[in-house]
Amino acid sequence: MSKARLVRIYLMEAGDHLHALLEKLRSQETLRGVTVFRGIAGFGDSGKLHAASLVDLSLELPVVVEFFDTPQRVEQILAHLADDLPAGHVISWDVELND
Amino acid sequence: MSKARLVRIYLMEAGDHLHALLEKLRSQETLRGVTVFRGIAGFGDSGKLHAASLVDLSLELPVVVEFFDTPQRVEQILAHLADDLPAGHVISWDVELND
Amino acid sequence: MSKARLVRIYLMEAGDHLHALLEKLRSQETLRGVTVFRGIAGFGDSGKLHAASLVDLSLELPVVVEFFDTPQRVEQILAHLADDLPAGHVISWDVELND
Repeated sequence: MSKARLVRIYLMEAGDHLHALLEKLRSQETLRGVTVFRGIAGFGDSGKLHAASLVDLSLELPVVVEFFDTPQRVEQILAHLADDLPAGHVISWDVELND
Repeated sequence: MSKARLVRIYLMEAGDHLHALLEKLRSQETLRGVTVFRGIAGFGDSGKLHAASLVDLSLELPVVVEFFDTPQRVEQILAHLADDLPAGHVISWDVELND
Repeated sequence: MSKARLVRIYLMEAGDHLHALLEKLRSQETLRGVTVFRGIAGFGDSGKLHAASLVDLSLELPVVVEFFDTPQRVEQILAHLADDLPAGHVISWDVELND
């Protein structure tokens, strides 16, 4: 067991943030796996509901980018990404990693 | 950085709980973004497996409703929602928010 | 409120790990609900990006298996599963359960 830190970043799929963020994360060679999840519905500061339907190909859906690494590494990465991330959309917390 | 609290609520997509819950959460004006994720498989107390296939349009799939806010606000919201939530399906924990 | 522990296990959908893991988890009678989520994109140790497109039926996508239970029960289950799980792909942390 070792200590790690998990990060979740909440974005909209349609924005420029997602692509730029993934490229930056991919360039972090030592970073552990990154996973992107798409929500089926969500609403943000506007209160407007965004929902997927079977025929909905819109990109107005929420996505979450998740990754974990050592706490020190996560701190560095978040500092490196600070300019690319919308304020109030990034959370992190300590976890235990089975290694 | 500020302290926040993340909530995950586990429901079935087909139930009445999901719709009622989202309406209630949407009416909480100060709440930060809410995101709904659909699982591709899951099983609950019954032990019965629910899984999505390419042709499966059933709603017997697990969903998770996730949101975060200040710890005080989360406590208020969960108290407000208590009657609408099935027992044992709501978890929460402290996180740090980059703001 | 009671103390619980949440586990997230990161796998690829195509591997043998997922099916074997779900069967083992299902046989744990007292375990609370298990949910499987599929990512829409991800990259692991290789740095190779795996992404879903509308016509992509490949199984080279990341999945996360998530469950929670009492801390003692989670410890037992992870010990029981240790041989089936790839190292460095399992994280867990303490949460509060509304029950």
